[in-house]
Amino acid sequence: MQSSREEQMIFSEADVCAKSPLARSFIERREHLNGELLASDNKLIKRFFNLDTNAYLHSEGLPVLVKELMGLSVSAAMRCESCIYYHLIQAFRYGSTRKQIEESLNISLVIAGSIVIPSLRNAFAMLNELMPPQES
Amino acid sequence: MQSSREEQMIFSEADVCAKSPLARSFIERREHLNGELLASDNKLIKRFFNLDTNAYLHSEGLPVLVKELMGLSVSAAMRCESCIYYHLIQAFRYGSTRKQIEESLNISLVIAGSIVIPSLRNAFAMLNELMPPQES
Amino acid sequence: MQSSREEQMIFSEADVCAKSPLARSFIERREHLNGELLASDNKLIKRFFNLDTNAYLHSEGLPVLVKELMGLSVSAAMRCESCIYYHLIQAFRYGSTRKQIEESLNISLVIAGSIVIPSLRNAFAMLNELMPPQES
Amino acid sequence: MQSSREEQMIFSEADVCAKSPLARSFIERREHLNGELLASDNKLIKRFFNLDTNAYLHSEGLPVLVKELMGLSVSAAMRCESCIYYHLIQAFRYGSTRKQIEESLNISLVIAGSIVIPSLRNAFAMLNELMPPQES
Amino acid sequence: MQSSREEQMIFSEADVCAKSPLARSFIERREHLNGELLASDNKLIKRFFNLDTNAYLHSEGLPVLVKELMGLSVSAAMRCESCIYYHLIQAFRYGSTRKQIEESLNISLVIAGSIVIPSLRNAFAMLNELMPPQES
Amino acid sequence: MQSSREEQMIFSEADVCAKSPLARSFIERREHLNGELLASDNKLIKRFFNLDTNAYLHSEGLPVLVKELMGLSVSAAMRCESCIYYHLIQAFRYGSTRKQIEESLNISLVIAGSIVIPSLRNAFAMLNELMPPQES
Repeated sequence: MQSSREEQMIFSEADVCAKSPLARSFIERREHLNGELLASDNKLIKRFFNLDTNAYLHSEGLPVLVKELMGLSVSAAMRCESCIYYHLIQAFRYGSTRKQIEESLNISLVIAGSIVIPSLRNAFAMLNELMPPQES
Repeated sequence: MQSSREEQMIFSEADVCAKSPLARSFIERREHLNGELLASDNKLIKRFFNLDTNAYLHSEGLPVLVKELMGLSVSAAMRCESCIYYHLIQAFRYGSTRKQIEESLNISLVIAGSIVIPSLRNAFAMLNELMPPQES
Repeated sequence: MQSSREEQMIFSEADVCAKSPLARSFIERREHLNGELLASDNKLIKRFFNLDTNAYLHSEGLPVLVKELMGLSVSAAMRCESCIYYHLIQAFRYGSTRKQIEESLNISLVIAGSIVIPSLRNAFAMLNELMPPQES
Repeated sequence: MQSSREEQMIFSEADVCAKSPLARSFIERREHLNGELLASDNKLIKRFFNLDTNAYLHSEGLPVLVKELMGLSVSAAMRCESCIYYHLIQAFRYGSTRKQIEESLNISLVIAGSIVIPSLRNAFAMLNELMPPQES
Repeated sequence: MQSSREEQMIFSEADVCAKSPLARSFIERREHLNGELLASDNKLIKRFFNLDTNAYLHSEGLPVLVKELMGLSVSAAMRCESCIYYHLIQAFRYGSTRKQIEESLNISLVIAGSIVIPSLRNAFAMLNELMPPQES
Repeated sequence: MQSSREEQMIFSEADVCAKSPLARSFIERREHLNGELLASDNKLIKRFFNLDTNAYLHSEGLPVLVKELMGLSVSAAMRCESCIYYHLIQAFRYGSTRKQIEESLNISLVIAGSIVIPSLRNAFAMLNELMPPQES
């Protein structure tokens, strides 16, 4: 399944790391810590990860890009910075325009208010590396 | 602007009320309480409402239906039941399929966990009136 | 101490109940449920209540009215409707103007976003009974 | 599995309903709304429910009563009233003492503060029906 | 408008940076990241910033210092550390006493509980640089 | 009281620091910042700390280890990383097995969803130092 997800993507993880130092350091740290999380044989966590993967798969209902943007919008509203970085990178890899990412984050800002702004600042710093403003 | 939004919609508010008693009672109560909120001339609230409307407008980035589904997903993850009902009705009016609404709520469930379930129960009760399961 | 707090107040609980049916029904239900909460001899809850009372006492730092408005603003941002009603009534009893209550709620709206609006609707319904808009 | 869980329980659902009108009306409403939620064949929700059930099963690590009390404490801290009622009833059915339930709720109060109090009031109203204070 | 706000202030940003290394590093990082956020022409974000500024302006209802302390109290209750630092610095610049800042944070602690303590630790570290305890 | 708590513990703070560099750096930073928090004579904070300590004491209702695991589960569900580290270390010191800690965190994950995962990653990194997976 992972491979079929990769096929739908426009950019590889290597592309992301080449464009954005912030994304690369996030990806490396996340991978290291995922190793810590999965070191023990915790079945419930593994089943949760599986469920989590399923929620974002392409379906007849919604294309995967929309689901990733939705995950981004929810993550920003709930101020989960690691979640924001993850879905921002995924949305980029699935071919999102900068405008689509910004509008998803705008919805988070309106729904959840100014406490979201510190997380948006960090999100835009990564976004500016992945898709510089003038290119949007 | 309101009129142009109405034009993009497939179902009128009257259609919604005819299909779903839960939606009708929600819409009536919301309208009454909006009157209370707007009775005083609170400029900041009025400007916020204006900003809020703008965040969900159709744009070159994302179609209005996707924005309403995104608003639904964020609202469910944050357990704001009035917000859920509002965006669920809006998504229905803009032509959402039942599957699109369910998948948006699934993302909320995976991101925000079982505390979301009580809100989902109420959301599905309204959804079942608007779009009965067998029709999906 | 309770008596000295009463002395600082401009309106009695009876005044509040006479002006606002919403406030009266809230006060009655809260009193009944406080009886349920304090029926057992739970020392930690009693000590917490004592601490809670102390945080809002008039002090050299901030007058009690400001503290009640602050409690109102925090409660609205965190969407605790019972907490909102309680602090709204307290602020009214300590002589708050309608404008002061509205500006405290405006700060909640800007900080915590549109998910606060359903709680604000209910708050304004009670506020309109206690201090009708035209009188503000 | 459900049957083995029932076997570990000291009180049946019928016992709970006989003792507490609040619990009975909660259980009936929850059952009705679960029907709404499960009316459509939403696989992700069904898998989530299964995972949820698993997290609270008796294990070599923690007995089921401790897990239910833990679920109660988390639910109260996050102010999910339906979740509180559910875990309170479950803890009662698995033989919790009143003191164990109160101490679990005390931890929620200290961790999450006074905004938890409105939910505690409702929790104690149900607790007082299930296990009147003088019996504790 | 910014200039009239500056005039009401007792301490300049340079004063703050001279007194507190923690505040200076926060201010510099915030300014840098605000540049990232505003690099693209996102109108909704700009309008939100404008609304945000307006909510804290001096008015007939509440003086600006009270509004900043209220923003501080809400931010601490919601555990937004950047928001806490910002409003703490603003309150200091508008002439807050140490006692006023502490009492605003006390209200956050009582309302939102012990999960607020880690944020309070960081807030007090900055407060101790801006207004050392013995001077209070 | 502190001494009697120490007596109930299986591992000293020094043991913890010797086993886990992550725990040591957390403990040192927390101790430093607690000094900042307690530098001023803020009576409400001191009383809150006292109440907080009391909530976790061994009692006829629940043993202290269960209370620490409960504190851990609530902290993880509310994504308070300092709180997670603190209760994780306490649970370890009171003799928790690795399985008990994992099952407490599993409940947080199911209740509060995937936004908890970034905090779990960090928790497991510390847990792996204190109680390496193969030893569990």
